[in-house]
Amino acid sequence: MKIVRFMNEDGKIHYGIIENGGDDKAFIIEGDIFKTIRVTDKTEKINVFLSPIDPPNIFALGFNYGGHAEESDVMYPERPIIFMKANTSVIGHGEAIVLPQAGPDEVDYEAELAVVIGKTAKNITPDEVERYILGYTCGNDISARDWQFHKQKDQWTRGKSFDTFCPLGPWLVTADEINDPNRLNVRSLLNGQIMQDSNTARMIFHVASVISDLSKSMTLQPGTVIMTGTPDGVGFTREPPVFLKDGDTITVEVEHIGQLTNPVKMER
Amino acid sequence: MKIVRFMNEDGKIHYGIIENGGDDKAFIIEGDIFKTIRVTDKTEKINVFLSPIDPPNIFALGFNYGGHAEESDVMYPERPIIFMKANTSVIGHGEAIVLPQAGPDEVDYEAELAVVIGKTAKNITPDEVERYILGYTCGNDISARDWQFHKQKDQWTRGKSFDTFCPLGPWLVTADEINDPNRLNVRSLLNGQIMQDSNTARMIFHVASVISDLSKSMTLQPGTVIMTGTPDGVGFTREPPVFLKDGDTITVEVEHIGQLTNPVKMER
Repeated sequence: MKIVRFMNEDGKIHYGIIENGGDDKAFIIEGDIFKTIRVTDKTEKINVFLSPIDPPNIFALGFNYGGHAEESDVMYPERPIIFMKANTSVIGHGEAIVLPQAGPDEVDYEAELAVVIGKTAKNITPDEVERYILGYTCGNDISARDWQFHKQKDQWTRGKSFDTFCPLGPWLVTADEINDPNRLNVRSLLNGQIMQDSNTARMIFHVASVISDLSKSMTLQPGTVIMTGTPDGVGFTREPPVFLKDGDTITVEVEHIGQLTNPVKMER
Repeated sequence: MKIVRFMNEDGKIHYGIIENGGDDKAFIIEGDIFKTIRVTDKTEKINVFLSPIDPPNIFALGFNYGGHAEESDVMYPERPIIFMKANTSVIGHGEAIVLPQAGPDEVDYEAELAVVIGKTAKNITPDEVERYILGYTCGNDISARDWQFHKQKDQWTRGKSFDTFCPLGPWLVTADEINDPNRLNVRSLLNGQIMQDSNTARMIFHVASVISDLSKSMTLQPGTVIMTGTPDGVGFTREPPVFLKDGDTITVEVEHIGQLTNPVKMER
């Protein structure tokens, strides 16, 4: 199922299911997406897409694709490198990524497969991970490189936690519909031009091992989002570097999931 | 007021007010601590202290005391250095800090003044900060040094986000009762022995400037906790290093607030 969270024309927020043949309307669902849901026969027009999830914590991986580790000139990590993004940075499909007037100046895109946890997970093995996953969505780990690398003694969190720096969506595809999360094309397109073009098969740590590993440190609550890292082709490693600017449009595309598109706007 | 969240003898969770003359019972309060509360004349026995707050995000400062920057051999930062702790790491006064069997091996204490945001704050000036603060509590930024420095390419988040690694409490003292948060003695005691003994006056960035600065990056929601950094005297900089072990008791004491004490236990 494609589970969407959206605002209808009256400004009411609903969860719904998108069926084949158009993403402008959804069948309303009742219940709790982490427990039991019932799909009604009532449809509503999707006026505004919202992030499909309101995560309690967002964990993200650094250097989880060979290509990206190489372009950044770092050694492959021995275990998943985890950082966090503030959950206040989450926006949905179509919502603007806002560049603050006072900077940061080097705002970059990172196309990622995002995993959404469905059940409380602690100390689970890789084999058990699959049944703790609710589904998958597209994520854009927007990153202010000046803050990430220079202004915070190399702590990445702040440069990746500005408001609007975590687009998620457009919907969540439930785990039963994804045969293998470690075999999905992942791309980003800046103003329609392909910038990243890879496959989750190139991840150094695959989904099950990442989540099992994380669950040995902390309890993963329902709704927790794990951003699985980005492939090569980001803006800061290019010559000359490419950073997001007012008027740009950035799209993250994950095979079998969809396209997450966000305009970029200067703060007014 | 001292606002406490606790479990009574029947296992029910309440917010209450502690009055002078003992911290074993509280006057039950009704309402929303971020909006309006009413103190009733009904008292309940405090059976278990809970963290006074269930924070949406926890932001913490690195190297915010001169002494601690020096003992760690780092330059003073030019601006607040922010990292995050997972909100799943929060525990209350009296609850055990649990050391996982499989490590980490180098688990350290960090006594801190913790600030709790009361109203949504974005782009506020230092002069405005005071009226966005609900109150203050004691925080212990438990930190696995092996994970913080060696196992995560210097990303601090994971080593500080293990379950139980964020004791907060025992209660929240409302902002009106603290004349100057930048003039409070802060100490830690390990098994009764003083390990850290400083004053928030020695913070490099004071409360108002830290919160104003943070609010220029992200929206601070009600309940957001800001851990303001730790003074010198932590365990890993000692010769020989001191790390927490099964059976220890660690206390954080902040003047005019109280004492936050937690036993340390090996995971079983």
